[in-house]
Amino acid sequence: MRPSVTELEVHDIRFPTSEQLDGSDAMNPDPDYSAAYVVLRTDAEEGTASEGTAFGGTACEGYGFVFTIGRGNDVTAAAIRSLRPHVVGRPVPLTAADLAALHRELTHDSQLRWLGPEKGVMHMAAGAVVNAAWDLAARYAAKPLWRFLAEMSPEELVELVDFRYLSDALSRDEALAILRAAEPGRAERAARLRERGYPAYTTSPGWLGYSDEKMVKLAQEAVADGFGQIKLKVGADLDEDLRRLRLAREAVGPDVRIAVDANQRWDVAEAVRWMSALAPYDPHWIEEPTSPDDVLAHAAIRAGQPVRVATGEHVANRVVFKQLLQAGAVDFVQIDAARVAGVNENLAILLLAAKYGRPVCPHAGGVGLCELVQHLAMFDFVAVSGSWDDRVIEYVDHLHEHFADPVVIEAGRYRAPTAPGFSARMYPESIAAYRYPDGPEWRTRLARQPAQGPSAPEPSAHEPSAPEPSVRQEDHQ
Amino acid sequence: MRPSVTELEVHDIRFPTSEQLDGSDAMNPDPDYSAAYVVLRTDAEEGTASEGTAFGGTACEGYGFVFTIGRGNDVTAAAIRSLRPHVVGRPVPLTAADLAALHRELTHDSQLRWLGPEKGVMHMAAGAVVNAAWDLAARYAAKPLWRFLAEMSPEELVELVDFRYLSDALSRDEALAILRAAEPGRAERAARLRERGYPAYTTSPGWLGYSDEKMVKLAQEAVADGFGQIKLKVGADLDEDLRRLRLAREAVGPDVRIAVDANQRWDVAEAVRWMSALAPYDPHWIEEPTSPDDVLAHAAIRAGQPVRVATGEHVANRVVFKQLLQAGAVDFVQIDAARVAGVNENLAILLLAAKYGRPVCPHAGGVGLCELVQHLAMFDFVAVSGSWDDRVIEYVDHLHEHFADPVVIEAGRYRAPTAPGFSARMYPESIAAYRYPDGPEWRTRLARQPAQGPSAPEPSAHEPSAPEPSVRQEDHQ
Repeated sequence: MRPSVTELEVHDIRFPTSEQLDGSDAMNPDPDYSAAYVVLRTDAEEGTASEGTAFGGTACEGYGFVFTIGRGNDVTAAAIRSLRPHVVGRPVPLTAADLAALHRELTHDSQLRWLGPEKGVMHMAAGAVVNAAWDLAARYAAKPLWRFLAEMSPEELVELVDFRYLSDALSRDEALAILRAAEPGRAERAARLRERGYPAYTTSPGWLGYSDEKMVKLAQEAVADGFGQIKLKVGADLDEDLRRLRLAREAVGPDVRIAVDANQRWDVAEAVRWMSALAPYDPHWIEEPTSPDDVLAHAAIRAGQPVRVATGEHVANRVVFKQLLQAGAVDFVQIDAARVAGVNENLAILLLAAKYGRPVCPHAGGVGLCELVQHLAMFDFVAVSGSWDDRVIEYVDHLHEHFADPVVIEAGRYRAPTAPGFSARMYPESIAAYRYPDGPEWRTRLARQPAQGPSAPEPSAHEPSAPEPSVRQEDHQ
Repeated sequence: MRPSVTELEVHDIRFPTSEQLDGSDAMNPDPDYSAAYVVLRTDAEEGTASEGTAFGGTACEGYGFVFTIGRGNDVTAAAIRSLRPHVVGRPVPLTAADLAALHRELTHDSQLRWLGPEKGVMHMAAGAVVNAAWDLAARYAAKPLWRFLAEMSPEELVELVDFRYLSDALSRDEALAILRAAEPGRAERAARLRERGYPAYTTSPGWLGYSDEKMVKLAQEAVADGFGQIKLKVGADLDEDLRRLRLAREAVGPDVRIAVDANQRWDVAEAVRWMSALAPYDPHWIEEPTSPDDVLAHAAIRAGQPVRVATGEHVANRVVFKQLLQAGAVDFVQIDAARVAGVNENLAILLLAAKYGRPVCPHAGGVGLCELVQHLAMFDFVAVSGSWDDRVIEYVDHLHEHFADPVVIEAGRYRAPTAPGFSARMYPESIAAYRYPDGPEWRTRLARQPAQGPSAPEPSAHEPSAPEPSVRQEDHQ
């Protein structure tokens, strides 16, 4: 009898990263990196996997998550729970056709679609469940996800994509042609990937909250560790950015690429002015110069100053990526594994980027984003774009210790994962410790704060002990 | 002592409208019109209002809501609850400055902003709370919202707007100039508005689920009732649309405008082909021809066929509206009162439309959207665009009976509201009856369905009794 999904579990996991200023940038001064984490349980048992006993006697499960930065993680968890009726009782999705059907059902529930459409909390929730299903299917097949995908036929892969709203830029036939063109080289590239790993860059030195000394030290360490590219956060103060970029350039020398990231801080004129000023230090790209919704502004910024433009981590869906490419608004396409509707929508975006000849340089960091997105970049290399030229996956050295199959970085490159699945599984001990608000790590912290009603464990913005407003008042205009 | 907000209450209210096919269209075959309804309670008492005892001895409250079409209304309610710490304990917002500060705090909480940014569930939740605060402030001032707004100075009004990401299209000074130019005529237009009412059109005849006979009868009744414009849903089948549009045109004659609405059904080429075919019946506009995120596609559709283009009810925020105007992608700007971040963001959109000389024709219908948006259109007429030429507010005759201050339509026009507030208050009896899942209207219905776990009262898509998938499989490509 074919196994079924028996349960969809959701956990609100938060890490108190704001205490260290890890992850601080011009728009996000105090993130608590968090995950609305989903577990798909099944009645599949050991030995039903196609390649034997990969599961150590336990039932086969699938894992996925939405990454958030703290407050609102519960809202995302509620959105994932609302998808339960679409999943529980369903046969375990095993094939491309199953995974295509699940993706369509989750993104085309007309009542839930109203809450986006195809954007924000509800769309990210669909993505977490879709990704958990992919994790499950790849575990069941006893293959790492990148390989599970890269062994599908071009015909199977195009069936995974929802081409609605894409046809003015990419037809099903064009997508098929891209995939077929990459097919002959798959085995050779997979071997090269296993041998060499995929190029990475690191953002660890560049958070705004770090001192100059800490930034310089971390930048030098990054180069010593083999990274050919680092990234600095900018956008709060131009004089400070000039100083920090100069120090970083002196620390790493002329041959290491330094990307900069404004985290949506600017309007068009401000972005052009700021990046014209930073240009002498040769920034590799300017990332998120303005609103991720603003295709026309990205095009204007790209045309108005000399530094190449990157965006994507907050781009809501394939329709906006399509327009960024159509309008010539971006040089680098920064997919995120957990913002769009999962593997299927990211496949659409990989195909669009290939059509327009733009390199995909994934966003990562946060909680588990490196673990997930490495699979998509490696699949892109093996079976879509067929290239890693000008391509790098972001790497941040945070929170990997909570994952059962953490990324492995060697000499500035991601090793190709070999464990089955999407590398999405967190340790049960981490889930228990960091569950919000009842895990021990939070019970202690929340006990120090003024009492709130049981339904509102959040710190109140109106209590004397509350943190500063997250964006300074003078920046609102 | 200045009164404070003492509580933020949220109710999940759903109406089983899918049973009548009211509201059915090419993308939304079975909506259950719903509201995630918020009540701001205060310790303000009778007599503290500036114009005397408007509140009949009860405490002053404010009401707002997110409109949804059923499933997921609980997710939106959770998002509203997550905003509670920003509101409870806060002094009651009374002035433009207070309302500007609240809007900024709700939309700039960096942790919650991550869930959009500025789009989807979290953004709509912020809008519901912002609107409830406006309702509260207008009630406190004992003025209908349109008048409360239209009596603010241009300087107060521009302070309400978040100009971030707008400056390449609209500066604060340009906005101020628009508002100042409209100032001299305010009193005359307000008097004209009170006398004549604001022009409306009706969608009641046009739902896809209605028979030809019902559609023709309702169209003729609409004309007899004084409407100069009706709207038909299209997009599921071209031959049917041609037949229905021909019948409607015969029923209403050549002088009544017939708009058509595809509810995001098409890609560019399909929209051009379809509307070229319908053009001989002289449709007044094609509404939502494609994805609301797709600025470039709207521009291509507008250029590719002769019918004017309208969109906006699902446009996520001011940044996308800005681009639709910059790209020359729309002829009519269809604001919605409950999708963006409330009155403040809609003011930004009204100013953008005025800058680009495009008429604002609000989306309404659903639950209470007519009640809310009439205030914004009337304020636009009095104090922003200064015109009602080419402008109409949508009207649908659904669910008004649940509101304490329902819209009044006479001879195809909205009467100017006179009751204090934003017309957002629902009757407690309606809330009690239609609360999901525990109100009596739902307890009865849910008892007829197969048992679900207590956390999942939704009908499962995998039970034999489940409805058809909401978008047909053959439409997914």
